[in-house]
Amino acid sequence: MSILVVGSVAFDTIETPSGRAERCVGGAATHFALAASYFTDVRVIAVVGEDFTAEHEEILKRRGIDTRGIEHTKGKSFFWSGSYLKDLNEAQTLNTELNVFQSFSPKIPAEYEDSEFLFLANIDPVLQADVRRKMPRAKLVCGDTMNYWINDHAENLARVLKGLDGLLINDTEVKLLAKEGNLVAAAEKILEMGPKSLVVKHGEYGATAFFSDRLFPGEDGISVPFRAPALPLAEVVDPTGAGDSFAGGFFGYIASQKELTSAVFKKAMFYGGVMGSFAVERFGTERLQKLDPNEVEERFALFRKLSHLE
Amino acid sequence: MSILVVGSVAFDTIETPSGRAERCVGGAATHFALAASYFTDVRVIAVVGEDFTAEHEEILKRRGIDTRGIEHTKGKSFFWSGSYLKDLNEAQTLNTELNVFQSFSPKIPAEYEDSEFLFLANIDPVLQADVRRKMPRAKLVCGDTMNYWINDHAENLARVLKGLDGLLINDTEVKLLAKEGNLVAAAEKILEMGPKSLVVKHGEYGATAFFSDRLFPGEDGISVPFRAPALPLAEVVDPTGAGDSFAGGFFGYIASQKELTSAVFKKAMFYGGVMGSFAVERFGTERLQKLDPNEVEERFALFRKLSHLE
Repeated sequence: MSILVVGSVAFDTIETPSGRAERCVGGAATHFALAASYFTDVRVIAVVGEDFTAEHEEILKRRGIDTRGIEHTKGKSFFWSGSYLKDLNEAQTLNTELNVFQSFSPKIPAEYEDSEFLFLANIDPVLQADVRRKMPRAKLVCGDTMNYWINDHAENLARVLKGLDGLLINDTEVKLLAKEGNLVAAAEKILEMGPKSLVVKHGEYGATAFFSDRLFPGEDGISVPFRAPALPLAEVVDPTGAGDSFAGGFFGYIASQKELTSAVFKKAMFYGGVMGSFAVERFGTERLQKLDPNEVEERFALFRKLSHLE
Repeated sequence: MSILVVGSVAFDTIETPSGRAERCVGGAATHFALAASYFTDVRVIAVVGEDFTAEHEEILKRRGIDTRGIEHTKGKSFFWSGSYLKDLNEAQTLNTELNVFQSFSPKIPAEYEDSEFLFLANIDPVLQADVRRKMPRAKLVCGDTMNYWINDHAENLARVLKGLDGLLINDTEVKLLAKEGNLVAAAEKILEMGPKSLVVKHGEYGATAFFSDRLFPGEDGISVPFRAPALPLAEVVDPTGAGDSFAGGFFGYIASQKELTSAVFKKAMFYGGVMGSFAVERFGTERLQKLDPNEVEERFALFRKLSHLE
């Protein structure tokens, strides 16, 4: 089944203890789409500027990703630069230039309208809501957000949350959104805001999913969360896009399955961790551009081995 | 099989967002012994003062713990007070009075000498080494330590590390001991210092074990660690002793088994998490004093459910 993702396609300049990379093709939609492309068909809605050439787009196309929804417009592409020199777990933003993203109005190509799976990557919730409205046939919708939208665009974000089957955010965002320091209490509050499930990304410690009864009626609900591990790595080269790659592996696996059961959801959490673990092994999207499908399955087996009693 | 634990038996005054508890019976050996008592026989070596009455000792005795090695001496028991009002994940120490612990010289009752399992809880590494020397028949030795010994007593600690089958410490201590910020690289360095395995406690995110080839020859070694989850709890009443309770569940389960295999080690990590999760549900050792063995097995089943794909 096809996934439609809307989000940023951008250039990133990144410095980490392992080195420096200039103007890598990045952005949430890019990391998400590449990760998801190992599981299912992916279509992208985004906007880029004149600096985004056919060669850059080829990075997505080579993985079979449908880029007809990437709008090319006058001006420069979204640019972000950040440093992980102080802390590998949290980027220090050095520069953000929204550029063409500032006046972005998402257009859905007719060929995209039958997408059954919709992922609203981290962008202005007004745009997320707009795309959701334009995709009435999407049967499963997940999304991401960040501190800036939680703090300063709460009402717009609240509208988006109501329509989500799953919200994927990190610990800090969870506590900020719920105004609650305890993870379980925060998760309960967030599920009451609308999302039928919440996936909390813990970085190097894995991820935890909380389920509402509305997602899997008759099952345990919020009382039994699910924790998926992350892979301890001897070197994290570049954490940029790890969370988006997690989301791509997670949602890509779900879209590849006939039905969303709790067993599929849990396995998807593992595939999320798998794709996140590949993402951080090289700068930018380098590692996700040319994985062997066997590598994905081997790492999935490793994730199982490192967390299962037998 | 019997475990001998040497460590502190103390009084703790604790404040957390859930309230305040005055002079609870605490200390690393107390939490450890209570947690381990659900799995095997436990013997304690410690020193207490005149303020530690028969009634206090009864807390251990009621769980069948052998307290003949608790020396009663003139003066006051070790006292600690701490606050978790700022951060539930890290105690702010308000007061530490070593009292009778200052001149402690461990004596091993003759009845303890056949203990096959030895746990060196967090005390002066000179005392840890002394007890190790006095217990030549111990066939499996694990231990704990803390920042203070790592920073200021490195040489003494190094001697203890050489003789350990397992070292159980938290993330901060691992990075400090290895002088290395990456967990995997730090674990490699620490295994080279002597311990045949390293269990890193991550608090609310569970724990990770790294194995050396010397512990399980012919198996994966350090290349495949093992991660056990922690239980997301809606209220953490008092985190004091969670790590010691983890160690008690972990080592207690190991001592209850015929042989230490990697399968037993992994299951022990789960039982460690189980006992840690009970410990934090009430102030001090209240929850660990009177668990039903069925509760332990039920929670083990919950830990499996929250981390296993099927």
